Amino acid sequence: MKRLLLVTAAAVAAFSPAVAQDRGSVNRIIDEGTNHSQVMVTAQHLTDVIGPRMTNSPAMRRAEDWTAGKFREWGLKNVHKEGFEFGRGWSIERASVRMVTPRPLALTAIPIAWTPATNGAVTAPVIVAPMKRERDFDQWRGKLNGKIVMVTLPGTGDEPGNPPFRRLSGEDLGKLDVFVQPTNDPETADRRLKRLDFAKKLDAFLKAEGAVAYVTQSYRDGKLLHGEGYLFGRGETPQVPGVELAAEDYRRLARLAKSGTAPTIEVLSDVRYDDTDINAYNIIAEIPGTDPKAGYVMAGAHLDSWVAGDGAADNAAGSAMIMEAARILAATGQRPRRTIRFALWSGEEQGILGSMAYVEKHLATRGRPDDAPQTGLRRYYGWTQRWPVTPLPGYGDLAAYFNIDNGSGKLRGLYAENNPAAVPTLREWLAPYAGMGAGTVALRPTGGTDHVFMQAIGVQGFQFIQDPLDYGSRIHHSSADTFDHLKAEDMRQASIVLAGVLLGAANADKALPRPPLPTQPVVTDPFAYTDDDD
Amino acid sequence: MKRLLLVTAAAVAAFSPAVAQDRGSVNRIIDEGTNHSQVMVTAQHLTDVIGPRMTNSPAMRRAEDWTAGKFREWGLKNVHKEGFEFGRGWSIERASVRMVTPRPLALTAIPIAWTPATNGAVTAPVIVAPMKRERDFDQWRGKLNGKIVMVTLPGTGDEPGNPPFRRLSGEDLGKLDVFVQPTNDPETADRRLKRLDFAKKLDAFLKAEGAVAYVTQSYRDGKLLHGEGYLFGRGETPQVPGVELAAEDYRRLARLAKSGTAPTIEVLSDVRYDDTDINAYNIIAEIPGTDPKAGYVMAGAHLDSWVAGDGAADNAAGSAMIMEAARILAATGQRPRRTIRFALWSGEEQGILGSMAYVEKHLATRGRPDDAPQTGLRRYYGWTQRWPVTPLPGYGDLAAYFNIDNGSGKLRGLYAENNPAAVPTLREWLAPYAGMGAGTVALRPTGGTDHVFMQAIGVQGFQFIQDPLDYGSRIHHSSADTFDHLKAEDMRQASIVLAGVLLGAANADKALPRPPLPTQPVVTDPFAYTDDDD
Repeated sequence: MKRLLLVTAAAVAAFSPAVAQDRGSVNRIIDEGTNHSQVMVTAQHLTDVIGPRMTNSPAMRRAEDWTAGKFREWGLKNVHKEGFEFGRGWSIERASVRMVTPRPLALTAIPIAWTPATNGAVTAPVIVAPMKRERDFDQWRGKLNGKIVMVTLPGTGDEPGNPPFRRLSGEDLGKLDVFVQPTNDPETADRRLKRLDFAKKLDAFLKAEGAVAYVTQSYRDGKLLHGEGYLFGRGETPQVPGVELAAEDYRRLARLAKSGTAPTIEVLSDVRYDDTDINAYNIIAEIPGTDPKAGYVMAGAHLDSWVAGDGAADNAAGSAMIMEAARILAATGQRPRRTIRFALWSGEEQGILGSMAYVEKHLATRGRPDDAPQTGLRRYYGWTQRWPVTPLPGYGDLAAYFNIDNGSGKLRGLYAENNPAAVPTLREWLAPYAGMGAGTVALRPTGGTDHVFMQAIGVQGFQFIQDPLDYGSRIHHSSADTFDHLKAEDMRQASIVLAGVLLGAANADKALPRPPLPTQPVVTDPFAYTDDDD
Repeated sequence: MKRLLLVTAAAVAAFSPAVAQDRGSVNRIIDEGTNHSQVMVTAQHLTDVIGPRMTNSPAMRRAEDWTAGKFREWGLKNVHKEGFEFGRGWSIERASVRMVTPRPLALTAIPIAWTPATNGAVTAPVIVAPMKRERDFDQWRGKLNGKIVMVTLPGTGDEPGNPPFRRLSGEDLGKLDVFVQPTNDPETADRRLKRLDFAKKLDAFLKAEGAVAYVTQSYRDGKLLHGEGYLFGRGETPQVPGVELAAEDYRRLARLAKSGTAPTIEVLSDVRYDDTDINAYNIIAEIPGTDPKAGYVMAGAHLDSWVAGDGAADNAAGSAMIMEAARILAATGQRPRRTIRFALWSGEEQGILGSMAYVEKHLATRGRPDDAPQTGLRRYYGWTQRWPVTPLPGYGDLAAYFNIDNGSGKLRGLYAENNPAAVPTLREWLAPYAGMGAGTVALRPTGGTDHVFMQAIGVQGFQFIQDPLDYGSRIHHSSADTFDHLKAEDMRQASIVLAGVLLGAANADKALPRPPLPTQPVVTDPFAYTDDDD
């Protein structure tokens, strides 16, 4: 009995009935997520078998059906699709680019997303005509007829001095624990919105000038490709075929053009549009809660991808973790207090449009109802510029949202996203998984993926800290984003931690403290002048 | 006059007449190599315009003519080609590989050097049949008919934890200054010789089994290709077309084959043989010496390359440095005591065969005259196993050989190649260029390029220490070995230092101390057992 005297306040908390119940679940979750893991099987099907999942492409349709079917097979409830207007489907059937003169050479190339087909191979001399703003057109007017136009200013070879593959040290994690004041320069935002239209203007200019096709330079060295493009809306499809070339191949053409006769190249881009359904679909699935008044917690990852690789680290990895966490919680028979909702988003790569649609349908709207419809990345940049934020009836139901979109690296904890009040609770949920390396809560906010529009309306959306591996250095959006760069041990750990955190949040006594409803734009430096070339 | 009292022995040496003369040349060399540099123009022509220079290919023939012409244009003397029997020319006209089922996908691929064409596109299912020794054939006999055979054991994704691009620190340089005892295990050498025949046996097996083509996996991740192959001799041309696939693409096929129906792929390999002339040619040029009895010094780099990239860092860079050093010395009107000879080697990538031929023609022969002729890498591995070494009349004339074959990084000094007696003299020759970062002399021996067979017969061949840049991590032999990964400032520095060292060696009062003539094989561990899988 003497040992009771040693029980501290912390120990009492650790053995409280609610926590003890959770701790019992932890071991079942770990067993299911290790000894019975399906996460790599799921990821392999999404990447190798289905392949890259461009929003509204035939492959994405297959992925939507397959993932919904898996959720049902695993016993998830209320599995359904939620559609939102997106635009055209687009996929690559066959593509190749070759230098014909001065010597035959296969070039590494990919069609730029949503550009049209070439209708067989077209062969023409190149012209290096770098253009990145409308005023650049003047220099090239009258010179592009019958040419394949190289529109990127050729760069020079990079000198990568950091290790491509890395894991976060304790010191790295410590640096993430900082509050960062929000910033917003309305002039910069306005200019970005205007600049978004440049791709359309360039296409119209090239068409008017009689260009045969255009070529861009990959932004990564080492023969990697990406192929991003954003003219996916109905009525904004470009008229001139475009291909991205590996940096090495682009710069070789540019040097040859500068040092002698411009090379002739052959471009074949056999791409297909699919207008069967202009709606994109988020996939939703649930583990119902026992308390109908307690609201819900949610985790999401985007299922769509670019098409240069197989969309493995970005983001079949996150999608498979979400699905695996759902499977683990269902297979271990969890009956959480709050509903746990799982979301596989679409349209993320074209402006975080799937989770934006979810927010607008379930949580809050922005701007006046008569706002003109917006398309493409304009919609993405413009959304947070529209006021006021108007909560919908379901606004208060979402107790916490967790996002995964940083590759296949193990979870190292959570970004508290500038919400210091949430830190102690997040830390508690992560505590059982600290021994797996996931115990950190860091205050820093993050952006660029599906939690941002929840944050923008004052809903507590979080993102996991992940070991970066080689995601940023060579995998993200690249032709090397394939299944073999996913790490199985990391993927299993992440699925377990995600399941555990979701269960902790679903069973928590009270919801996380919310930030106040945003009521006006942040303006941090109203007196600043900004460079037009920003 | 009092200041004379402070003159030390070292200072006397520094102001000796011979050294003072050299110091005057240094500034002219630097001026010519910076303000009038041609090295990048030379390198750009070799890479962009001529392209990759596979030994005996049409492009290598153009490179042979163009470099000899440049030497003549710059005033070099005795410019000529020295031929040696090599084998067939081979070049790629067009090549592509696509996955046809389960989904259309362009795969990143290159024909394996010296394999035959497919005669149009061939389409067949793959089979994963890893084979690396003859006994592996048993498992696959009767199963390969009509198949495209994947012969590499699929690997897993790499985790590159070192910076791809780096320069040598003082600490790095210090670690190179070590004597390394030579090693040789005759059993291992014998096994390697036997294993060299495996490519031929695999080809015969695949042909006999009715395989349509075979596929190997790239040894680097990140979509890089290489395409090496060694069956270039007359009468040993393979019968089955072979292609190397990017690791990501190979492993995807392998996983699909293991998890479901084997994918079908389409292989097009339009390659051409050229048997116009089975001889390869080294290009030789000279600046004649003023003392006909003083012998000569020589610098060399191999002009030939693999064909996945443009053979830029390996070794248009070294070739351009050799040519630029020759141009600098000619343009500055040097009249050295010893002849300075420049060599652009051929056949280096297939077994250091060009410099081997030079050695056999000018310096020493190995083995008995009735030794059976040997081909391919067998010749490379076998050459140093043949005894005795028999000096030719010109054996004593070569006072020093300097080799460049470590990419485009600046010269940091010289490897003394286990020759401690040479260190003080090498250091003296480098001294004027210490401020350019080239002052180090490190004892460590190096291998794998055109100085090794000179060392093997007791002639003092040295190699320069170079900043590694990204040569080893992603450029060496890869599809990213293009001009834009060469560094202009480094290339200029290297040309200047090379010119200066050559002039120092050509004007030195006495030749460098030679190692003794090798008279028997090194056997370092006669009692060792070796693993058959070594």
